[in-house]
Amino acid sequence: MDFLDELKTLKEQVLIGDFFKVPEHFNNIVIAGMGGSGIVGKLFSELYHIKPVICLDDYNIPEFVDKDTIFIGISYSGNTEETISCTSEALKKGAHVFIVTGGGKLSQMSENTIIIPSGLQPRSALGYMIMPLLNTFLHMVPERRERLSELLGAVDNHHEEAIELGKRIALERKIPVIFGFSPFRYVAYRWKTQFNENSKLLAISNYFPELNHNDTMSLRDTYLKDDFFFITFGGSTEKISKRIQATEKVTSTQFFMVHPLGTDDIEKMFYLIHFGDYMSFETALSREVDPGDVSSIEDLKRLIK
Amino acid sequence: MDFLDELKTLKEQVLIGDFFKVPEHFNNIVIAGMGGSGIVGKLFSELYHIKPVICLDDYNIPEFVDKDTIFIGISYSGNTEETISCTSEALKKGAHVFIVTGGGKLSQMSENTIIIPSGLQPRSALGYMIMPLLNTFLHMVPERRERLSELLGAVDNHHEEAIELGKRIALERKIPVIFGFSPFRYVAYRWKTQFNENSKLLAISNYFPELNHNDTMSLRDTYLKDDFFFITFGGSTEKISKRIQATEKVTSTQFFMVHPLGTDDIEKMFYLIHFGDYMSFETALSREVDPGDVSSIEDLKRLIK
Repeated sequence: MDFLDELKTLKEQVLIGDFFKVPEHFNNIVIAGMGGSGIVGKLFSELYHIKPVICLDDYNIPEFVDKDTIFIGISYSGNTEETISCTSEALKKGAHVFIVTGGGKLSQMSENTIIIPSGLQPRSALGYMIMPLLNTFLHMVPERRERLSELLGAVDNHHEEAIELGKRIALERKIPVIFGFSPFRYVAYRWKTQFNENSKLLAISNYFPELNHNDTMSLRDTYLKDDFFFITFGGSTEKISKRIQATEKVTSTQFFMVHPLGTDDIEKMFYLIHFGDYMSFETALSREVDPGDVSSIEDLKRLIK
Repeated sequence: MDFLDELKTLKEQVLIGDFFKVPEHFNNIVIAGMGGSGIVGKLFSELYHIKPVICLDDYNIPEFVDKDTIFIGISYSGNTEETISCTSEALKKGAHVFIVTGGGKLSQMSENTIIIPSGLQPRSALGYMIMPLLNTFLHMVPERRERLSELLGAVDNHHEEAIELGKRIALERKIPVIFGFSPFRYVAYRWKTQFNENSKLLAISNYFPELNHNDTMSLRDTYLKDDFFFITFGGSTEKISKRIQATEKVTSTQFFMVHPLGTDDIEKMFYLIHFGDYMSFETALSREVDPGDVSSIEDLKRLIK
């Protein structure tokens, strides 16, 4: 399947109904995953606030993990060494261990494992990986999944703005800077990582209101400012919206604003993510690089073995 | 006090012995703070793992905050609107509310308040703000504080490498990219924010091993790569050290490596932070911008009132 075909499967991915059986009592949720699999926990942490959610993207788990922890290990390949290391530590601590994977070693580590279809690039399998969490903890009933799927199908058919923006970034040779805000901080981070992997570009993500306490100074006075292209999202609260406008004004910076469609935060999150998929894909094509190529990441994995 | 004199007070700041009386039972720690005050919770979260630590840099607290939460509100001015908003929500939920502040509205909100000396820029008061947390939760006994103070005094007397590096970045007109790793991820972020505020430069921070899953592609193939200057730290674990070397190799990128002095993680953390203070200060002087000027941040605060 070529990379564009992979992108188009997202609308089917979000229809999967798999979920975990949650223990009656738990104190916290710890989610381990790296890169295109790790984004799942990060996005989820912005949507779920009933218990503390701690996302790990390293080799070890924190001391507090115990039998009252729900630990979720996510790796599309099932062979990510950091995630396997965290999962085996969590098992030793007696945590409730849930796994989402397409196969590999991770699929053999716990009875509570959801096996999702393999064969895609991890970053193109976000729907498969995140739906078990949304179904389990955020009541994504079939009607909501179907509505979400329709929205993503609509993005597949109409993403002219994403194409135009992706093209413009490449042709003007800009470094993208994406400013999110809650609950879309990690959408901004996802865009950054998609520019990294698909477009092979350095990129920056940051978020309001925190960035007002530091980046406000650099936005006004940095050198090389014309090398960067600033993007933010529409649909924020009034407080954040005022901050966006005020930041543009005091720093004399123009932000390109992408307005999400959707009727709730989950739909808007997916809309923006899919927009970013097409945008970074187009940036790759305009730069004449292969969006599907992740050979340096593979080279690195071989080198550190 | 001029900005350089402010930097030199860090060695005295770390001597303060204030601490909070911790309740016998608590489930989690939630720390609210923005920018130069918010970095306190972020740095602490990498050092303390006995209970979940959630850092907030926005207006609202998560639903799980309750009477078994230790909530710590940190604002040097005491008038940061995001932190005041979180603190008043935490009080309503019946959390144990601790405050660290130099004054302002925040100093009136809880009985458990540590008032620290005011009059500095918040980012120059890190020692005052973080020591109450380290004293309370990480056994920073007087001997450890004194040893730390001596180390920082030594940095005040010898920081030639920081000066040279700060100068080089400005003269070569580079955008700094700082790659940290646990427990120094937020040291990298601190350097980024110091380049923003002191040097008025855009900067990027990221961390191993997560960056190997996305930035590895951009490091090899991005355009404008010569506009960036890549820095990382010495003293990592063998696994991370191998990753740093492999990343340089597969992406044909050279990282400038800063080696921390110190006998434990807290000392190394402070050493690197103070190194970054002098480095970003020197970048400002070489660019002929005022490191103490935060007028855009002040302009913005007035505009959103």
